[in-house]
Amino acid sequence: MEFPSQLVKNAVDQLSTLPGVGKRSALRLALHLLKKDKEKVEKFGQSFIDLINNINYCKECFTISDYDLCQVCTNPNRDKGIICVVEDIRTMMAIENTLQYKGVYHVLGGLISPLDGIAPDDLKIEELISKIDKGNISEVIFALSTTMEGDTTNFYLFKRLKEKSIKISSIARGIAIGDELEYTDEVTLGTAISSRLPYSDSIKTH
Amino acid sequence: MEFPSQLVKNAVDQLSTLPGVGKRSALRLALHLLKKDKEKVEKFGQSFIDLINNINYCKECFTISDYDLCQVCTNPNRDKGIICVVEDIRTMMAIENTLQYKGVYHVLGGLISPLDGIAPDDLKIEELISKIDKGNISEVIFALSTTMEGDTTNFYLFKRLKEKSIKISSIARGIAIGDELEYTDEVTLGTAISSRLPYSDSIKTH
Repeated sequence: MEFPSQLVKNAVDQLSTLPGVGKRSALRLALHLLKKDKEKVEKFGQSFIDLINNINYCKECFTISDYDLCQVCTNPNRDKGIICVVEDIRTMMAIENTLQYKGVYHVLGGLISPLDGIAPDDLKIEELISKIDKGNISEVIFALSTTMEGDTTNFYLFKRLKEKSIKISSIARGIAIGDELEYTDEVTLGTAISSRLPYSDSIKTH
Repeated sequence: MEFPSQLVKNAVDQLSTLPGVGKRSALRLALHLLKKDKEKVEKFGQSFIDLINNINYCKECFTISDYDLCQVCTNPNRDKGIICVVEDIRTMMAIENTLQYKGVYHVLGGLISPLDGIAPDDLKIEELISKIDKGNISEVIFALSTTMEGDTTNFYLFKRLKEKSIKISSIARGIAIGDELEYTDEVTLGTAISSRLPYSDSIKTH
């Protein structure tokens, strides 16, 4: 694609660095921006510059927060002895939306992924361990995606934490509520059968 | 969705103004940006600010161009007597890529669309008419999308231009090359039958 303008080419090149955005949709987005008011587009561009320059992370759990400590870590009603380990704020927000969890979080900032060049050192794993070593932690819950990267990270964390005198748990894997068994994939169904619970325990999740 | 940071909320709000980007994908994109180097994200944001502040249009055909006249209008080998009317630079780039067209363009900057509040006055229609009135134009080709808005614009332009002593044509509508007739929709097939050409003319398009 040959662009009639270097400015358009720059904007298209930048937009197509976003995941899932190809050159063609990037051009559509750039032309969409060009139809807007100057002030609106300036605000659009400035929001990313502000984001990267002023972003701040909670000193306790490493989630994104405008303050030194996030809303969860400063909440006196949250149980500081239970830590839920998550990949990023998206999982944290999703768990918060369930209103089912009253502990605190620890945001790793990613998952171990040799293919993407992400090693344990790139994540907030030492910070988690030193938090546990300080004491007063009773349980660590792994709430990572059930993907190859999530499982690798789970396994690495378990190896590092198993000697500590804390309870280590992982979110339950099984059939999603509302799913029909005949359409469930084999791996999930197999996991759900081998991790079966006494009936009285299983209905707790409802 | 409650965001843990106003900065993230701003970036997500801005990204979700883009067509086809919802709040959830906007958050994914914002977190993707946060993992990049500061300089890269600054360049990302700055590219849109530069785009809107420095964008320039060809004084002749109104396409986006870094110079006062675009590459097509300044090319001495292009036939200035044939004008192809297009919606925006995307159609112009698509036609240029075919290498089949040797005339010049006129970019309307949109299509007439009462639902979106786009009237003929919002488009470069008067500029097209005054260009024709200056003389030396032999043919105007409508190359607009075969949608409701494209047809409305075609019809409006035809009404305004039919009294002028120029040839008015429209790009051919029919079966796409490589398409199987049984899967072609009825409207296209019907149009293709009623606009049938003598066989010797029809194979010219191959």
